[in-house]
Amino acid sequence: MMELMENLRIVLVATRNPLNIGAVARAMSNFGATRLRVVQPYERAFREARSAVGAVEILRKAEECETVEEAVADCGLVVGTTAIGNREIRHPLRSLDRAGTLIRKRLKSDRVAVLFGSEKWGLSNESLSYCHWVMHIPTRAEHQSMNLGQAAAVCLYELARGSRSFEERTKKVSAKMETVERITESLRECLELSGYVAARSEALAEVKLRRMLRRFELDAGDAEVLLGMVRKMEWKMKSSGE
Amino acid sequence: MMELMENLRIVLVATRNPLNIGAVARAMSNFGATRLRVVQPYERAFREARSAVGAVEILRKAEECETVEEAVADCGLVVGTTAIGNREIRHPLRSLDRAGTLIRKRLKSDRVAVLFGSEKWGLSNESLSYCHWVMHIPTRAEHQSMNLGQAAAVCLYELARGSRSFEERTKKVSAKMETVERITESLRECLELSGYVAARSEALAEVKLRRMLRRFELDAGDAEVLLGMVRKMEWKMKSSGE
Repeated sequence: MMELMENLRIVLVATRNPLNIGAVARAMSNFGATRLRVVQPYERAFREARSAVGAVEILRKAEECETVEEAVADCGLVVGTTAIGNREIRHPLRSLDRAGTLIRKRLKSDRVAVLFGSEKWGLSNESLSYCHWVMHIPTRAEHQSMNLGQAAAVCLYELARGSRSFEERTKKVSAKMETVERITESLRECLELSGYVAARSEALAEVKLRRMLRRFELDAGDAEVLLGMVRKMEWKMKSSGE
Repeated sequence: MMELMENLRIVLVATRNPLNIGAVARAMSNFGATRLRVVQPYERAFREARSAVGAVEILRKAEECETVEEAVADCGLVVGTTAIGNREIRHPLRSLDRAGTLIRKRLKSDRVAVLFGSEKWGLSNESLSYCHWVMHIPTRAEHQSMNLGQAAAVCLYELARGSRSFEERTKKVSAKMETVERITESLRECLELSGYVAARSEALAEVKLRRMLRRFELDAGDAEVLLGMVRKMEWKMKSSGE
């Protein structure tokens, strides 16, 4: 998947804040997008951004363009982003998850540009006129406007979805029932020695205890540890009682 | 869906940069999460953060906690975040999309805490020991470490993702973390009294024990029973020793 991100062009139009340019570049680096284009950046902002953590290479290779037209010229699909707000969008509008599916598909065979507007105004109608359609991150109606660096990170995360750069480690090896039963027995003994279980209710307590220990769904390692613990406590209580 | 976000607690541990605290609060506001907790923030950072765009209310209501323990005490599920890097994580590790599904499910009936560590070091092993499991945003292997504000935005986007309204409620009522912590403490005491834990390895043992008890994902009823058991054993061993 990450290779597909090579076909992605992130285009920042009239961005003002150097921290935001740097933040966008960093998120690109995190998610494997390398091609940044900036249209009419505020010169100072662009210069200051060049040292963003972990994104030096992306910023060094960033292409400066005079116009949106130039920035999207070699792309087959151009997608704008918007916070909607009270502005009337005349383009087809898609939520990010649906947009992500469509863009990932296109990245397999085509270059795709995703445009972000200025922090204050978003994309102008003129810039939007170069877009095939517009996407929107579903945010709370009362607070739609996202920080630029964060919006870019969320979009890039969604576009890079499906890449499994690491293996999940949730495989657990379950404890053998004989170990669980040994824990049960030793713990029952402890509870009796401590006076937690009265002799008359012993049988019932044992059943409850057995059920509870199984609910824990112990893995093999934890079961060994737990067995060691209860054995030691059992031994201690026995030796003190003598 | 957004109402479920009311059950979410975002916990920032030892965050240094006021811009990051503000950015996290803003992303929370965008995605409908309102409850922020900060553990040992750098005082100046926290004060400076208080005016982040659109997040004044969240920052004003943010709760300051002395410890991670305190910050997660009323939650039923505690999830850490990590960039992995070269650190060895001993917890079950899930990618964000899988984690999102699990957390959204739990938010229907339970409070869930999501922890973010400091910009420089992430979450310490001690902080992680309060977590049931850990989640990771799938980033490029060569550049895993995300900016804190961006990582939080991506996580919140995923957690607020449009939900399946027909999903079953999970019947299990999770144990509150304060109960689990009381079990941990009493059991640690028992292990010390029994000689299972030697004084020199005590701190390490406590962290391991805390981690193990969280892996059990106790329900409320079992936790109460277990607490009664260890308390009784503790009492017994103490009274025999005198």
